[in-house]
Amino acid sequence: MNTGELVELGQQLRVDSVRAAAAAGSGHPTSSMSAADLTAVLFARHLRYDFERPDHPGNDRFVLSKGHASPLMYAVYKATGAIDDEELLTFRKNGSRLEGHPTPRRLPWIETATGSLGQGLPVGVGIALAGKRLDHADYRVWVLCGDSELAEGSIWEAAEHAAYEHLDNLTLIVDVNRLGQRGPTRHGHDLDAYARRFQAFGWHTVETDGHDVDAVDRAYGEALSTRGQPTAILARTLKGKGVEAVQDREGLHGKPLPEAEEAIAELGGPRDLRIRVEAPSADGTPPAGHTGRPDLPRWDKGEEVATRNAFGEALTALGTARGDVVALDGEVGDSTRAEAFAKEHPERYFECYIAEQQMVAAAVGMAARGWTPYAATFAAFLTRAHDFIRMASVSGSGINLVGSHAGVAIGQDGPSQMGLEDLAMMRAVHGSTVLYPCDANQTARLVAAMADLDGIRYLRTSRGAGPVIYGPDEEFPVGGSKVLRSSGRDRLTLVAAGVTVPEALAAAQALEGEGIAVRVIDLYSVKPVDRETLRTAAEETGCLVTVEDHHPEGGLGDAVAEAFADGSPVPRLVRLAVRDMPGSASPEEQLRAAGIDAESIAAAGRLLVGEAIVS
Amino acid sequence: MNTGELVELGQQLRVDSVRAAAAAGSGHPTSSMSAADLTAVLFARHLRYDFERPDHPGNDRFVLSKGHASPLMYAVYKATGAIDDEELLTFRKNGSRLEGHPTPRRLPWIETATGSLGQGLPVGVGIALAGKRLDHADYRVWVLCGDSELAEGSIWEAAEHAAYEHLDNLTLIVDVNRLGQRGPTRHGHDLDAYARRFQAFGWHTVETDGHDVDAVDRAYGEALSTRGQPTAILARTLKGKGVEAVQDREGLHGKPLPEAEEAIAELGGPRDLRIRVEAPSADGTPPAGHTGRPDLPRWDKGEEVATRNAFGEALTALGTARGDVVALDGEVGDSTRAEAFAKEHPERYFECYIAEQQMVAAAVGMAARGWTPYAATFAAFLTRAHDFIRMASVSGSGINLVGSHAGVAIGQDGPSQMGLEDLAMMRAVHGSTVLYPCDANQTARLVAAMADLDGIRYLRTSRGAGPVIYGPDEEFPVGGSKVLRSSGRDRLTLVAAGVTVPEALAAAQALEGEGIAVRVIDLYSVKPVDRETLRTAAEETGCLVTVEDHHPEGGLGDAVAEAFADGSPVPRLVRLAVRDMPGSASPEEQLRAAGIDAESIAAAGRLLVGEAIVS
Repeated sequence: MNTGELVELGQQLRVDSVRAAAAAGSGHPTSSMSAADLTAVLFARHLRYDFERPDHPGNDRFVLSKGHASPLMYAVYKATGAIDDEELLTFRKNGSRLEGHPTPRRLPWIETATGSLGQGLPVGVGIALAGKRLDHADYRVWVLCGDSELAEGSIWEAAEHAAYEHLDNLTLIVDVNRLGQRGPTRHGHDLDAYARRFQAFGWHTVETDGHDVDAVDRAYGEALSTRGQPTAILARTLKGKGVEAVQDREGLHGKPLPEAEEAIAELGGPRDLRIRVEAPSADGTPPAGHTGRPDLPRWDKGEEVATRNAFGEALTALGTARGDVVALDGEVGDSTRAEAFAKEHPERYFECYIAEQQMVAAAVGMAARGWTPYAATFAAFLTRAHDFIRMASVSGSGINLVGSHAGVAIGQDGPSQMGLEDLAMMRAVHGSTVLYPCDANQTARLVAAMADLDGIRYLRTSRGAGPVIYGPDEEFPVGGSKVLRSSGRDRLTLVAAGVTVPEALAAAQALEGEGIAVRVIDLYSVKPVDRETLRTAAEETGCLVTVEDHHPEGGLGDAVAEAFADGSPVPRLVRLAVRDMPGSASPEEQLRAAGIDAESIAAAGRLLVGEAIVS
Repeated sequence: MNTGELVELGQQLRVDSVRAAAAAGSGHPTSSMSAADLTAVLFARHLRYDFERPDHPGNDRFVLSKGHASPLMYAVYKATGAIDDEELLTFRKNGSRLEGHPTPRRLPWIETATGSLGQGLPVGVGIALAGKRLDHADYRVWVLCGDSELAEGSIWEAAEHAAYEHLDNLTLIVDVNRLGQRGPTRHGHDLDAYARRFQAFGWHTVETDGHDVDAVDRAYGEALSTRGQPTAILARTLKGKGVEAVQDREGLHGKPLPEAEEAIAELGGPRDLRIRVEAPSADGTPPAGHTGRPDLPRWDKGEEVATRNAFGEALTALGTARGDVVALDGEVGDSTRAEAFAKEHPERYFECYIAEQQMVAAAVGMAARGWTPYAATFAAFLTRAHDFIRMASVSGSGINLVGSHAGVAIGQDGPSQMGLEDLAMMRAVHGSTVLYPCDANQTARLVAAMADLDGIRYLRTSRGAGPVIYGPDEEFPVGGSKVLRSSGRDRLTLVAAGVTVPEALAAAQALEGEGIAVRVIDLYSVKPVDRETLRTAAEETGCLVTVEDHHPEGGLGDAVAEAFADGSPVPRLVRLAVRDMPGSASPEEQLRAAGIDAESIAAAGRLLVGEAIVS
């Protein structure tokens, strides 16, 4: 397309954005109009993409970080012929693929769900990293951001990561329209302010008029020819560009244009220009597949092993068997034990430094390219990435998260380092799997099993060594549990997971000595939960006592309660959990103080079989 | 102190750090040793602080962002006489005030709990902002950071905030010891790399040798004399400085020194220098207290009002009555309705732009100075600040968080904007209060009530207008509930909150018409939960059906289940919640699709009283 055609295409994208929002009665046309020329030039002149083959390994990747500008996204899809005008006008309607914010769950050309600002660039960095270091392909990653979202710290985690990794296959286009949702941004049209920041972080920058299609074209060319560093294009634009009534005005964010017909006329009316997006020439390397069944590490019963160690060894073995497995860590690989993988498979290990949002985003980006990422840090610090995990589930992304140092059992370091909310956070993620192993062999099996699940999978590991309870050939289906003690005389059931399993076993042993038979269930699969086994235990023993190294809300106790939340008969339920704020103390003192050690469990058991009520 | 004494003091802080960690058998002496000279000079020459009066309004504020360097913190407390040597050696022991990571819950001189990296500077910005704009006091805020933690995006949210607000009362001291936990940082000893970044964000910077006490002293002096912008001092240091066996070596993070006695000898042995910290001269203005009972807005039954609107109006009224109330928002004040407060009380309103971590951190900083902050954004985006909320609870901080646009009821915008995990997140925070009003009068009362609670308080508001159900004089105690329908013939109980209350009432009305009497409870206080009323309903109706606009995990259903988790008799429990990933659709279509509208609730009710099992 020549200059005149590009200008026309920009206007067409505006018109179609206005039309889509008008048909929906909601949406963000003004945020689409500012970026229309930037998008027109990109799709018509620079993007290499095969819309017939969205999984083509050589496709460039486009991420709309400012996801609310979805009308623009869909308008450009229409211009490429990927969707038709009829579908464009289903925007935001019940059942439409064209959601208010784009998501790959609906449309095959979307790389990642956006709409929570500041996430597109971090995920784009993950895709670009995959291109450079895993796919070894020459696709480019183009990310379109708003200016408001540059206030998010996650943008600067991504900026640091991209420059450090010399991602010259990444171009960030910033639509500097100076207006956020409720008013002007901090820096308005001061492009230099943004350029200084990106330059300081090691980026090449280009400042341009975002409505001058030739200047934009030159900026993209400069980005393509820049080697050794990513490029940020800072484009001065006007929100609502092209329609006097809304252009560069406050108070018009997220609203259809007041007079859509007049606006369309002012923009020159509808057009039907078609973009012929150039297909990629070369294929990249798809992720190497399985080389066989993993040769998982094995431990003998009675050995003392920390589940974090088992995780590190198992992941390393899995990485040997599966070329698609990659690992990421937030500068604590010596603690999470991800460093074991790093030593064996350095080419598939990604040090993300202390930037948990970026770590999870990079995993999402790699998963989008077909890799199977495991991202590890302390369970407590995964809370830093909660919004990214939430959005990954909106994407339908398949990633593995591993949180070490769970609970008060870590001991002296104190509450800042203790994961005591992680089960609640991970259970509430849509479609998630939550696993909490108690021994090394179980950990190894679950590490391997989680690779093939859908959605967000979470494994919780422990710092201290614990006894190996299971033999190395035992199987642990996701959604299952293990009944570790059982008899026809059981008067209550202890439901434990992770570090509380050995405690529950010791408590049961003590109670047995007093003539009180107690069932013990290892509920290693916290979500999905093994309803069947829990119901049988409820029927047969009448009372379930959950014991967890976690706050009382959202964890094991709630998972067990949920197993009965369909109107079926409910047993008596008691939950032992961490109810007070811990301080520093030894692991043993911590478990005792929280009332989740063997002695506390046994005491609770005695009270309960005596029909006493614990309150 | 003169140069020689300062050098000696630095050595003393090292010796005491080594001794504390040796006595504990754990801890981070090498991370303390790098920052010992920086801390010695600060406390001996520049900090103005009255250890007898930690709440002195004129006190400078010191924040140890690298919280793992707690031995250094406690060593300097000993040097000031605030603690004695005996207490120093209780470090990390059960019951000691000297936790592995410092927290104000234990020690009155600590401003905020640290240990999750990248949080001290953001909170320090909040304190400095309070100093400038609320306290109008001339205290300074000094934050000591590690270099590793500069990878956290939250640091750059804080950097942006501080420079934009011209916080020249804030000095950041970066202990650039080049080594993180598992190895070298991205930038090693390249002080310029950090200086460029801070300068680009609008800071004054000073580069110095962090072991040259005179140079450090000059750097502090330069910070003190810098006007109009915050100062970052980038200090080149060596981890483990002063002990050859550990100095500048990898693999020694978070470990006591291998040969403590030899190390102490190498450092010149124990000393007993005393620092006379200068007390502040001037008092600041403490927060203005109550001026009376708030004149809360009132609505008539039957009006249609969104609870977010009621929040905005009630907060504004509260701000009129109470001079200590401040509001913060993440650039969505027109959506959360915090802008109502901004218009009435601009001097106590803080626009935090799209930086939710910084918004919560600023609130924590202001609360530390005695203010009562309300921080608002979309419920979904509060997940961005999860780790800050968690750490605020470790601090024992009292802050109010308000999440708008909860649930599928927002309609067309789709899942990225829907808070569907927020109740789970907030319930699992230690000591939190979780409130979810269903109408405008209830909202107003709860907005006022939450100001006086301890800990983290969360209010969930809704986007769309709903009917006013309660009169303006109704009272809503925290921990209570409202029985909206009840009879001796009730065959089940619907437990709802927020948007599902009108739906439950309509369902009950429909079922009544079919001869099925149903109780309806408005569980506006999700945590603490009204056990008494729920138990009575369970006894009298046998079956509780929870209905929530939230994922099934961690929300209303779990809160109700927890009310029976003490071994008391459990009713049949059924939970209606959002189980599938929503798309775009109208609010009504969304509630229907999720099975939480009146018709779906009525259908579930019919099934249940027919003894059918819903699965």
